[in-house]
Amino acid sequence: MKKGLFITFEGPDGSGKTTVSKNVFNMLIENGYDAIYTREPGGIGISEQIRNVILDPKNTAMDKKTEALLYAASRRQHLVEKVFPALEAKQIIICDRFLDSSLAYQGYGRKIGVEDVLKINEFAIENCMPDKTIYLDIDAQTGLNRIEKRESKDRLDQESINFHLDVVAGYQEIIKENTDRIIVIDAKNDISNVTAKCYDEIVKIINAK
Amino acid sequence: MKKGLFITFEGPDGSGKTTVSKNVFNMLIENGYDAIYTREPGGIGISEQIRNVILDPKNTAMDKKTEALLYAASRRQHLVEKVFPALEAKQIIICDRFLDSSLAYQGYGRKIGVEDVLKINEFAIENCMPDKTIYLDIDAQTGLNRIEKRESKDRLDQESINFHLDVVAGYQEIIKENTDRIIVIDAKNDISNVTAKCYDEIVKIINAK
Repeated sequence: MKKGLFITFEGPDGSGKTTVSKNVFNMLIENGYDAIYTREPGGIGISEQIRNVILDPKNTAMDKKTEALLYAASRRQHLVEKVFPALEAKQIIICDRFLDSSLAYQGYGRKIGVEDVLKINEFAIENCMPDKTIYLDIDAQTGLNRIEKRESKDRLDQESINFHLDVVAGYQEIIKENTDRIIVIDAKNDISNVTAKCYDEIVKIINAK
Repeated sequence: MKKGLFITFEGPDGSGKTTVSKNVFNMLIENGYDAIYTREPGGIGISEQIRNVILDPKNTAMDKKTEALLYAASRRQHLVEKVFPALEAKQIIICDRFLDSSLAYQGYGRKIGVEDVLKINEFAIENCMPDKTIYLDIDAQTGLNRIEKRESKDRLDQESINFHLDVVAGYQEIIKENTDRIIVIDAKNDISNVTAKCYDEIVKIINAK
């Protein structure tokens, strides 16, 4: 391998993304691959500080474009301090959520506009696009049912349901425009089955490199 | 006036920008104009928090693109919470530094590239460009001499001198490309003279509106 391999996991809430990506990472390690697992802010001090500003419950006046710029800033620093060095060290990076999450959640979900969100993120990531992205595909209703089991139903008001539907629809648009990069995996099956499929895909990617 | 008037002051360190812009604001108030004075972060809680991340001396690992995104985020929130409402209230806004400072200091000074810095700032400000910008023009050497008087010479190493020269040269490029918006005022004279000239220009702008 000339340099490392940058693989991101994407999917709406309820897709099983975090569990599956961690499982796949553990299988890679067990099979002797030199891999790291990360997600933004990934323990990077500056990115953590930025996240604290985003998530501070006092910051109710936060504008959605301010938020998008802060996510891009956090992403940039996480890349510089964690992903770029791992790529240099020829490691396999498994990253839970990346650019596509901003496009889906902020571009489509919050309706800032996907072109604009892409623009500020292109600034942040330069040319460091993921080599491949695993998308855990779940229809909006099944995803919603899983979230409802996890969270109290009271928290899922109509606004959050509509937001979820917009995010899922946004992901579908992103997939259409990135067929070379994004591998769609059916995520309706049980976790072990989905994990196995994702692992197989990633080994194929490694071998094709 | 249909809406307010957004006037920014720009200039390199040593141009007298902060003193002059405050003087001009006070003259506007004394003469009965409905004006506000501000500069980023301008007492906006979220923008202050973002500035604290930028200026935290522990954050030595901060990437210059992360910094540029944070400045754009702070600018966005300051606009939304302070400038937009003042424009709606038909006030005159005197703002010490704005977009051009990012282009000069980060685009040219830190060499991120002025087009890229412009792109993320266009996202942040949407179409809220200043109606007019007063540029306090000082040649690089005179500006440097003034900074040297203000700060201990030890702090001005070759890097900061070169940075200052790049910023001044950057401003000259920005002026060339924005002749309709930017009014250049000779800032070599004494402060009271420069203040008077700037005040006259601003009254002209108000009357022309």
